[in-house]
Amino acid sequence: MDDGSTRGAAHLQDLRVHLDNLERAGKLVRVSRAIDKDTELMPLVRWQFRGLDEASRKGFLFENVVDGKGRKFPAEVAVGIYAGSSDIYSIGMGCPVGDIRKRWQAALAKPVPPRIVERGLVQEEVHIGDGLLEHGGLDEFPIPVSTPGFDVGPYVTAANWVTREPDTGWINVGNYRGQVKARDRIGVFIGPRKHAWVHWDAARRQGKAWIETALVIGGPPGLTYLSGSRVPFGVEEYAAAGALIGQPLELVRCKTVDLVVPAHAELVIEGRVSTEYLEPEAPFGEFTGYMGERVHNAVFEATAITHRRNPVFATIISQMPPSESSKLKKLSQDNNYLFFLKNHCGIPQVQDITFHEIALESWAVVQLKRCNPSVAWQTLYAIAGKNTSAGKIVIAVDDDIDPNDLESVVWALSYRMQPDRDMVTLGARAIGLDPSGLPPSEDLRNMTAQKEFGSLVLINAMRKWDYPPVSLPAKAYMDRAREIWEELGLPKLTPRVPWHGYELGAWTERDRQEAEWAVTGEHFRTGDRAKQQRRKVEDGQ
Amino acid sequence: MDDGSTRGAAHLQDLRVHLDNLERAGKLVRVSRAIDKDTELMPLVRWQFRGLDEASRKGFLFENVVDGKGRKFPAEVAVGIYAGSSDIYSIGMGCPVGDIRKRWQAALAKPVPPRIVERGLVQEEVHIGDGLLEHGGLDEFPIPVSTPGFDVGPYVTAANWVTREPDTGWINVGNYRGQVKARDRIGVFIGPRKHAWVHWDAARRQGKAWIETALVIGGPPGLTYLSGSRVPFGVEEYAAAGALIGQPLELVRCKTVDLVVPAHAELVIEGRVSTEYLEPEAPFGEFTGYMGERVHNAVFEATAITHRRNPVFATIISQMPPSESSKLKKLSQDNNYLFFLKNHCGIPQVQDITFHEIALESWAVVQLKRCNPSVAWQTLYAIAGKNTSAGKIVIAVDDDIDPNDLESVVWALSYRMQPDRDMVTLGARAIGLDPSGLPPSEDLRNMTAQKEFGSLVLINAMRKWDYPPVSLPAKAYMDRAREIWEELGLPKLTPRVPWHGYELGAWTERDRQEAEWAVTGEHFRTGDRAKQQRRKVEDGQ
Repeated sequence: MDDGSTRGAAHLQDLRVHLDNLERAGKLVRVSRAIDKDTELMPLVRWQFRGLDEASRKGFLFENVVDGKGRKFPAEVAVGIYAGSSDIYSIGMGCPVGDIRKRWQAALAKPVPPRIVERGLVQEEVHIGDGLLEHGGLDEFPIPVSTPGFDVGPYVTAANWVTREPDTGWINVGNYRGQVKARDRIGVFIGPRKHAWVHWDAARRQGKAWIETALVIGGPPGLTYLSGSRVPFGVEEYAAAGALIGQPLELVRCKTVDLVVPAHAELVIEGRVSTEYLEPEAPFGEFTGYMGERVHNAVFEATAITHRRNPVFATIISQMPPSESSKLKKLSQDNNYLFFLKNHCGIPQVQDITFHEIALESWAVVQLKRCNPSVAWQTLYAIAGKNTSAGKIVIAVDDDIDPNDLESVVWALSYRMQPDRDMVTLGARAIGLDPSGLPPSEDLRNMTAQKEFGSLVLINAMRKWDYPPVSLPAKAYMDRAREIWEELGLPKLTPRVPWHGYELGAWTERDRQEAEWAVTGEHFRTGDRAKQQRRKVEDGQ
Repeated sequence: MDDGSTRGAAHLQDLRVHLDNLERAGKLVRVSRAIDKDTELMPLVRWQFRGLDEASRKGFLFENVVDGKGRKFPAEVAVGIYAGSSDIYSIGMGCPVGDIRKRWQAALAKPVPPRIVERGLVQEEVHIGDGLLEHGGLDEFPIPVSTPGFDVGPYVTAANWVTREPDTGWINVGNYRGQVKARDRIGVFIGPRKHAWVHWDAARRQGKAWIETALVIGGPPGLTYLSGSRVPFGVEEYAAAGALIGQPLELVRCKTVDLVVPAHAELVIEGRVSTEYLEPEAPFGEFTGYMGERVHNAVFEATAITHRRNPVFATIISQMPPSESSKLKKLSQDNNYLFFLKNHCGIPQVQDITFHEIALESWAVVQLKRCNPSVAWQTLYAIAGKNTSAGKIVIAVDDDIDPNDLESVVWALSYRMQPDRDMVTLGARAIGLDPSGLPPSEDLRNMTAQKEFGSLVLINAMRKWDYPPVSLPAKAYMDRAREIWEELGLPKLTPRVPWHGYELGAWTERDRQEAEWAVTGEHFRTGDRAKQQRRKVEDGQ
């Protein structure tokens, strides 16, 4: 079947080309032995997030997937292939790791509209109408259990949900977890104020019984990088994803709903989400590191299933961070906030912002060039104002602090901040999935009814005045010592900043002179000077 | 010369035996090429703290030390041999790393009094009276510059200063930095309330013009582990060190002062610290990561120099953490606080306390078993009350949080704490060497005159109620997956806690039943149940 596009141009839109790219880069593990999708598959991949460093992580492709009842599936399962590591993520974007930030910022500034094509491999097989369940419906696909022992069912996780705003026609693509409840029914958790929720609520207020929805699995990696992201309302993920990968996304029209989906995707489920009723959904392992509780959430009912032959069922490993999901969220969230602070709030001093993967909703560090404290505080207020819940502990640091290195941030908190002067606690925050906000209880946890129980703390951990130098040997001495280190054949170094001392404003000509005397054997001159400046000890000291 | 003791019993008291032990354990680097003590020596060792992981760090022995004027020294220099890593430290204690905590707690409970012996190798050579400077005084020894480019002179760093309380006879051994100012004069920074300061101040108040003092270098490693520590006032470091290494310390009487010093030490300088005048001392690189500023501090004047032939000049690499000094401080401080909280304050729920090396005066994490919040807060108040400055950010965590793993602590801060409810800021703290307390200024920095400018924040990051399980697969699935992982020949795992999910109180029989259905292919039953429990969408949600 002709997919209506040139293969070459499509390479970043076709998951199989992406898998080839990973394999060529040594970033793919193929598993050919039988693996139980419910009890073995995710725990196996989980180990690399609890027992390897990030550089060693790979994507996994399971070629022989079974379940506890001995069923075999005509589909492979891919996990960790989107964002198992920054390296993997950059392959999906088609750029070096060092360009991820630049590409993202450009994509937010200049989206590239998608292109509608007539045919797509995603419709190689179509199950529709009376034939909807001819191959078992959702049961045709090896949908894994993410957290065996605690999850209440298989979930779709690399799930890009497409909706259209009733009034404007704006198309949204969002990543929301989906509990497989029947051959044709999926519970979906669309949090309040998420863009798909805005669409759903608009349809509901217009008296429509449902909103048309398409679930895309195995589309272009670039689209998955956008769909879990907080891009501004009104920005189309299809266009931003096109900009991210540097080519217009190719889309085809759906068979049973008025939506468009990626032409090269592995699998699309078309259907409707009711606006009239909700159902219990979850528990499901969440990015907070705890099981998300059972709440009444939306329900999606299928009207068509279309897919490539022997589709690759793509999934994301999420839950306790770090995980593939935390990498996805972090990179998109960091970039959205950076664009927001620099471009919308107009704060050019902002150099970087990072939500640490262990605490994506909570621990944010923003790095600024030295500035007036009002600029540091504007930045902190802006972060508090961007979202009802993201950012519980928000820390501003100087540009010699590495915001991604917790030790560096703790160093700044320890010696560039005074709690009573530089911390402000604010209340009236939504608690999201944070279990510290209030005790477990379905009613209170209901995301749409949730009251304000949370709080945040803003911390200015930037220097308030000139400091003495960093207490490491000056650069020339460290450079020379490194030559000797290598000459002696000592183990390979991976330098960590700071690796040499540097001045921070509070350093005098006398200091420089005495430091020079120290390395030239003239330090007794400093001792003589000290003797001239003796002072009597006084009482009360 | 007979050293008055059996070699075997003395093995943990003789630095050369310790160096042999390190070498046998593969933890010593001998450098035989010429190394400039002022410009090359410390930067070379520094690299292992900025470019290697802790397990790869070693002690260094420099066998051919020179200075910028081409002088050669009849002494070797040892750096990193006390606490370059926890492994090295444990060798100095004569126990496995896993027993350090137990040994320390026992030493604080049951000190072992030292034993006075008649002769010691430390007095193999004696320079005294008119002959004090016959070999150059302090200039005989290759005393390195720690932070070339910023330090104002060579400093003694592995410096154990011995003083005696005038009234009680209690002997203290404290580690204080010492600036070499002349052949017979060292500036010494004894902070207010340090125990040697208490002795000095008592002598001063009694109208004495000086206090007798001995500076010990290259004594038993166990003594160095104590001398930088905050043991209770009245506990003799000699006795606690004896308990730490499991044998009474052997001491000899000094030649010119009424003090006793380790018989097997490499070098002792006897002398006096004036109580009448102070001199400018520093800048010197400090453990805060910044240069300590020039302040008026005490002055030590030598009356005798005694040493082993060709002494090994022992030093500590300190300054920007992590360093040897931060390891020394951390291990002793953690143990002192643990003993204080458990034994003195009587809080058996305390499991562990750790001051992170990057921020020894600031970032403390205390781990407790689940307890009434009043116990958590008692613990936090006790830490605030133990010292005027240590502990700026003090965090209580549950016993499933690893207090030494910053990521684990940030996870607790993010999801087990609400800033407006669980944080208390308190003022009126001494700022010590923390540059964030007030702008640089010698007068304000004067440690004895320093006013209260600082503050701290106490944070209860323990769970306030039952939580849902940790979102990782249950242990049985992770165990099984690890077998498959190994069968597939995937890279060696270094598991990090938590590596499996576990319950935290909020989990019902229904949750367990539905989780069981999920892994046995019965998840549609959960879906059916959800359908039965549909709820109408209501306005205002």
